[in-house]
Amino acid sequence: MIPGKNELIKAAKRIKPFVHETPVLTSSSINKIIGAEIYFKCENFQRMGAFKMRGSVNAILQIPDKERAKGVVTHSSGNFAQAVALAAKSIDTKAYIVMPFNAPKVKTAAVLEYGAEVIECPPTLKDRETTAKGIVDKTGATFVHPSNDLDVILGQGTAALELIEQEGDLAYIFVPVGGGGLLAGTAMSAYHFSSQTEVIAGEPFGADDAFHSLKEGRILPSLNPNTIADGLRTSLGNINFPIIKQLVNEIIRVEENEIVDAMKLIWQRMKIVVEPSSAVALAALMREKSRFFNKKVGVILSGGNIDLENLPF
Amino acid sequence: MIPGKNELIKAAKRIKPFVHETPVLTSSSINKIIGAEIYFKCENFQRMGAFKMRGSVNAILQIPDKERAKGVVTHSSGNFAQAVALAAKSIDTKAYIVMPFNAPKVKTAAVLEYGAEVIECPPTLKDRETTAKGIVDKTGATFVHPSNDLDVILGQGTAALELIEQEGDLAYIFVPVGGGGLLAGTAMSAYHFSSQTEVIAGEPFGADDAFHSLKEGRILPSLNPNTIADGLRTSLGNINFPIIKQLVNEIIRVEENEIVDAMKLIWQRMKIVVEPSSAVALAALMREKSRFFNKKVGVILSGGNIDLENLPF
Repeated sequence: MIPGKNELIKAAKRIKPFVHETPVLTSSSINKIIGAEIYFKCENFQRMGAFKMRGSVNAILQIPDKERAKGVVTHSSGNFAQAVALAAKSIDTKAYIVMPFNAPKVKTAAVLEYGAEVIECPPTLKDRETTAKGIVDKTGATFVHPSNDLDVILGQGTAALELIEQEGDLAYIFVPVGGGGLLAGTAMSAYHFSSQTEVIAGEPFGADDAFHSLKEGRILPSLNPNTIADGLRTSLGNINFPIIKQLVNEIIRVEENEIVDAMKLIWQRMKIVVEPSSAVALAALMREKSRFFNKKVGVILSGGNIDLENLPF
Repeated sequence: MIPGKNELIKAAKRIKPFVHETPVLTSSSINKIIGAEIYFKCENFQRMGAFKMRGSVNAILQIPDKERAKGVVTHSSGNFAQAVALAAKSIDTKAYIVMPFNAPKVKTAAVLEYGAEVIECPPTLKDRETTAKGIVDKTGATFVHPSNDLDVILGQGTAALELIEQEGDLAYIFVPVGGGGLLAGTAMSAYHFSSQTEVIAGEPFGADDAFHSLKEGRILPSLNPNTIADGLRTSLGNINFPIIKQLVNEIIRVEENEIVDAMKLIWQRMKIVVEPSSAVALAALMREKSRFFNKKVGVILSGGNIDLENLPF
């Protein structure tokens, strides 16, 4: 059921020319505050500012040439929109991005800047899906899902694979969970390349569908998610959930103020810009820090795309 | 008149155990916007968050052991206060920091956190100087000036020395100018180690004493400086000015909105936190970008200490 380790190695090799190998940073003051030895994998420094570039590139490169020439489609108002736009541009194909007409202008602008075509639609999931389907039918472009696609999951897993190569011997890796692509990919990388490493997800209480899904053993969709961590308002899917169920034992939920505090700590002490979703992983570690005393812990900082004019502090 | 290159090499060696070798980052999108090949020397990642750590460590290490055991004194409400506090702690001596009683609490807290003793005084330069003098008289501690001290200047110059080692062949290096320590040190490093590199300073119109001093050939103190770049409100001194006069040909002045725009660009595109003073160097480059088309340019990002609750955007 879990793809083999070669699948991850091949994905890493495939995407290499199109993504950055991001640095791993440490902060002695954060280590002191939390009491653990923390290695931050900085996907905020990834191209377009988030790990989503990895999965997007991998999925697009896996489309057969003839199909790929007709372009790719996705619907997203977040980082995956930018990721598909930039990946398509880098791979030299066309991207159609379906976005709700009320999406922040800064997000639409970023997608346009990467050369994609933006198609606006009403702001419901159904409208987004219908509009995307219409484009597939009309253009023959291939639809790429942000998180529930095995090639996307394998691509996202390369961040943890790199982290394990850069800093072996981690007792834990913390990641945020939203749609589940990063969590499933990270869990696969740890399983194959660092079996003693336990993967723990952080999730906002205000969007804790993954927590409940894992507990119940079946997907419970996210109902009215409400969190500052805008990347984590989505639900798990039938492709990533079985992987998560098999490989992940624990999801730690965090309060909104804990997310903001963790984000502020990262900005102040590390002098780097991360988005709220990124801070959820550190917030989870901080919430239960006594359990991780003196442990070697990896934290994946998932991205750094944030509207500087609407900061929570 | 200009200290020899060995002085810089010795300073770099002396401070090495106490400072970080900071990374040089690039941004393809900023390069594209400005039309130059820019190498950012990230002193915002320096210990305590600014280049001032370098000069502070160098100056304190140059005090004879017996004197140093009595401690060090400075007056500052900015990065130099934190730099002396952390340097003294690292070198295992005592720091007395004179700060105006109306200094932001966050700054006072940072200095206390590094284990220094804070002595509050009325918020005038005269009061600060008198209070510092009183401590010197009472304790025998050595006074360290933030910018007008040759050992401080040599220490600050090691940032450019590192940059030149990391990225040779720069046509220009841009730095902000406030008290003049960083500018004088950078100019010395370029003079000795990269003679084809021209050093250009950025300065806010609202605090353009260095611009006028260089033009007139004599120190004109800063009168009522008014700029968001709080690190640049100070004036040149009689030790750094002769070096600047001999080695620096150009200071480009920038408007406040240009500083904010440059700062925002760095945060958004590079995902790093820099303070307004840091952005002044990039703002100067941006203001006259056509002159630097396709050139290889170094920019020293001087620091990243900023109150996140009072951002200009």
